[in-house]
Amino acid sequence: MALHTVIMAGGSGTRFWPLSRKERPKQLLAITGAKTMVRETAERVAPLTPFARQWVVCGALHEKSVRTELPELPASHILVEPTGRNTAPCIGLACVHALREDPEAVLCVLPSDAFIRDGARFCDALQAASASAGKGRITTLGIQPARPETGYGYIHMGDVVEKAGALEVRQVSRFVEKPNRATAEQYLADGKYLWNAGIFVFKAQQMMDAISKHLPELHAGLMKLDGALANGSYDKVVKDLYPVLPSVSIDYGVMEKETGLAVVPSSFGWSDVGSFAALPEVLPLDDKGNVVRGTALLKDASNNVVDARAGRMVVAVGVQDLIVVDTKDAVLVIPRDRAQDIGKLLEQLKANGREDLL
Amino acid sequence: MALHTVIMAGGSGTRFWPLSRKERPKQLLAITGAKTMVRETAERVAPLTPFARQWVVCGALHEKSVRTELPELPASHILVEPTGRNTAPCIGLACVHALREDPEAVLCVLPSDAFIRDGARFCDALQAASASAGKGRITTLGIQPARPETGYGYIHMGDVVEKAGALEVRQVSRFVEKPNRATAEQYLADGKYLWNAGIFVFKAQQMMDAISKHLPELHAGLMKLDGALANGSYDKVVKDLYPVLPSVSIDYGVMEKETGLAVVPSSFGWSDVGSFAALPEVLPLDDKGNVVRGTALLKDASNNVVDARAGRMVVAVGVQDLIVVDTKDAVLVIPRDRAQDIGKLLEQLKANGREDLL
Repeated sequence: MALHTVIMAGGSGTRFWPLSRKERPKQLLAITGAKTMVRETAERVAPLTPFARQWVVCGALHEKSVRTELPELPASHILVEPTGRNTAPCIGLACVHALREDPEAVLCVLPSDAFIRDGARFCDALQAASASAGKGRITTLGIQPARPETGYGYIHMGDVVEKAGALEVRQVSRFVEKPNRATAEQYLADGKYLWNAGIFVFKAQQMMDAISKHLPELHAGLMKLDGALANGSYDKVVKDLYPVLPSVSIDYGVMEKETGLAVVPSSFGWSDVGSFAALPEVLPLDDKGNVVRGTALLKDASNNVVDARAGRMVVAVGVQDLIVVDTKDAVLVIPRDRAQDIGKLLEQLKANGREDLL
Repeated sequence: MALHTVIMAGGSGTRFWPLSRKERPKQLLAITGAKTMVRETAERVAPLTPFARQWVVCGALHEKSVRTELPELPASHILVEPTGRNTAPCIGLACVHALREDPEAVLCVLPSDAFIRDGARFCDALQAASASAGKGRITTLGIQPARPETGYGYIHMGDVVEKAGALEVRQVSRFVEKPNRATAEQYLADGKYLWNAGIFVFKAQQMMDAISKHLPELHAGLMKLDGALANGSYDKVVKDLYPVLPSVSIDYGVMEKETGLAVVPSSFGWSDVGSFAALPEVLPLDDKGNVVRGTALLKDASNNVVDARAGRMVVAVGVQDLIVVDTKDAVLVIPRDRAQDIGKLLEQLKANGREDLL
């Protein structure tokens, strides 16, 4: 009953434009460190799951880059989605492949593009979750909230199921959607609400059974893929079949409907790094609160995010709360509180005939 | 008694960094139009002084670029200052050369890097000034002030000397230094104060006589250069001598001391274009008050100056009153009201060992 890691790397990551592009989304960029986020994710879980027991699910456009980033992984462990169908098919696909290799596999499924400050504490939490999963509970990591964040979903936790050293395993009372500000403040004050980081640990076979119960159509498709793996027709079948699998999230499709779930309340410095505006949470600041990467000169400038890693000198004077990003072929200047709008910009660039910049 | 033009192109123009560089200062850049400012200046005066009667005084570092920009000028009309010594030696040097070619020469001396909106009206004013100069008066053009500008010197005008069509030639009562705001407002209200645009017309021999009277040391040096021109030793002598000529402005050294000066009050849309902040005065604005050059996409952005002529896409969202300049190797972001500080930045870049960017 070995633990495997499944890294979900299907994102398209437009909110980091112009750093991120269609062919090189956030998880393939060094956003929070010196290495790409997918590489950092793989190295982070390596103490528990060596590369030989790691899997990556990614889009066809990124397969080659992922293989280059993670040459240590078995070639057959890079699973390509012909088209993105949300997380339930993605996780189901990983289950099918892992079960062929290891019928007792326990899978830790996690996003490829989150920041984690304390890798050792993360591994401790993951170990506790994997022990819990081995006992037949789909177990998630829940992040102790640091602020009344409205951008994340929450997990309402119930009673303690068991202790695991300094950590607890608790019942999941329910999953809740992104709250409004007032509700988020209530959650924070309540103390029983955790951020849902999208990190789940479970026996692969148990997840297949849960999919069979709650998403029978998806299960039928996955079984066809399993048969195709057995008879050597997988490459053709996955191309035809995967794009028509029901597109549904694992949260909505399975987790919110399943009972007996567990959560390990955790605290290891987590951020989903949703945009440039989140970088000051996770990167070092200078004495004026600026995040500066690359060759930049700042003067009378505070609380800015400057990414000048394209080799040019970026000089910013007398500006506050601004994002300035320089790349080979595009420069972006936008206030931090507008960072969420970057995606919309790309539609405009497309309308202007500049698909080359997307 | 032919009119010649002397274009003073000795400026180092740091306030347009990163567009301007040591080797390519403002006058060698297309700041206000499609052509370089020195080329636009030469073409502007061409109706009155064909290229064969134009002269350029420039620094050694810029000689080659000036020759490339103005191939129509006689090679001997590009006068190189071994080092900059302010405007009195510069004008004296031009007098010496022009007098050798044309003892009756009338010179119109003007900066190489000013903006003039209405070239025809400018030529009318210049013609009136040159007629006045032919009658033995050092004559300057004075610009009707459009606002209480504190960045320019002023000319206090006296009585009308003569009419020249719709234009007047008036006595110069005195030259005054850059005023403070209250004084500038007084000047504007008074109606007798004009901006000093540094455009002078005079008989070359008369200017030599005035230099002899007010700056005898400079005159002696200039006569040595004249002798060297006669005996073929000029190239060597100018290198040794010019750098030790007294460094003084024509305004302070001659104009403020000379009597009998005249001024032609003029109005042809003039700006010295002292920095990026001045561009909205002289370039077309979009419907949000932005000056945009090159490939840029602006959204919810007003009153910005964006120069994106390096080929990269510059995207600016939700910003106001900002200057954004993209070049091959440097990007600048600075508020419009800090544009005067750009020069200081360069000292910092130098201190940081980035002389390559200056």
